[in-house]
Amino acid sequence: MEVVFVCMQKRKKRDWSLTTEAGELEMKSVQDVDFAKGNGLVPVIVQEIGSNEVLMLAYINAEAFVETVSTDHACYFSRKKQALWRKGEESGNVQKVLEIRIDCDNDTILLKVEQVGGAACHKGYKSCFFRALDGIDEWKVVEERVFDPKEVYKKGDQS
Amino acid sequence: MEVVFVCMQKRKKRDWSLTTEAGELEMKSVQDVDFAKGNGLVPVIVQEIGSNEVLMLAYINAEAFVETVSTDHACYFSRKKQALWRKGEESGNVQKVLEIRIDCDNDTILLKVEQVGGAACHKGYKSCFFRALDGIDEWKVVEERVFDPKEVYKKGDQS
Repeated sequence: MEVVFVCMQKRKKRDWSLTTEAGELEMKSVQDVDFAKGNGLVPVIVQEIGSNEVLMLAYINAEAFVETVSTDHACYFSRKKQALWRKGEESGNVQKVLEIRIDCDNDTILLKVEQVGGAACHKGYKSCFFRALDGIDEWKVVEERVFDPKEVYKKGDQS
Repeated sequence: MEVVFVCMQKRKKRDWSLTTEAGELEMKSVQDVDFAKGNGLVPVIVQEIGSNEVLMLAYINAEAFVETVSTDHACYFSRKKQALWRKGEESGNVQKVLEIRIDCDNDTILLKVEQVGGAACHKGYKSCFFRALDGIDEWKVVEERVFDPKEVYKKGDQS
C-alpha cells in the first residue's frame, strides 16, 4: 500500500493560507525523505536567498515538511517542546520559503528563505551562527545584533 | 577536574601537518560544543567560502572536531562506518577550513571551506543539495555534474 501523507486545512487562525484549493493536499515528495534514520526527524539547513548566508539549523518531521511545502512558510519540529514549531508565529519574523532542496542521501533538507524582520536567531542576530572560533580556544561574537530579544519575545516564548 | 581533549600528532602519513609545534594540542573550544544532546555527535554545515553555497551536511564528534581545528582540514565522523572520516582522503578533494562557527545553542557547527577539486558530493556534484523540489511531488536535479564518481572513487570508497 502506498503511504500518502495528507495535510488538512484545519488551522484557520494562521495569517497565511494553504496553497491547495481543495483544502487537502496529497504530497509524494515527503515519501522520498529518509525520516527513519533520525527517528522521524531530519535536519533542515536554513539559508537566506540572495546572500546565501546560513541562518540556522532546525529539525523537521513529515507533518512539518508537508506544512512547509503547502504553506510556503517554514514549519519545523521543536525537539525541546516536542511539537510543531511555526517559525515566527509569535515574533512575526516568519520565513518565506522560496526553494526546497534535498541532499544525496535524502536525509537533510535545505530551505532557501526570505527572513522577515531580518533576523532568524532568538538571541537577536541575523544568523544563529554569530560566533566564530578565534584561535583554538575561544568562540567570539563576530556579528552585530539586529534586535533586542526582550522586546520581541514578550511572553518569553522564543519562536 | 577540568576536562581537556588532547589531539596527538600521530598520523604521519597525512599530506597536511598539524599546526601545533609541540605535537600535542590542548583545546578548550571543544568543551563548549554540546555533544551530549546528539549522543556524542553534532551536525556540521559545510559552506563554500566566497559563494556561500552549502556543500553538504556531516556529523562531527569531539575527536574529529579537535582534528579539524588542529589541521585546518575537515574531519568528520561517519555514522555509517562509525569511524573518523577525513574528507577527501581517497579522492584528494579535501576541504580546507577557513572559518569555524557555532550556533546559539552550541549544538551545530558551521564550517566555511575551500573545496579542493570543486565538488563535495560523492555523486559528482559540487553540492550534495543538487535536487530541488519541483511543485509538491518531484525532486529534480538542478545542478550540473562536476566529475564522474566512477573515475574518482576507483576503490568504491566514497570519501
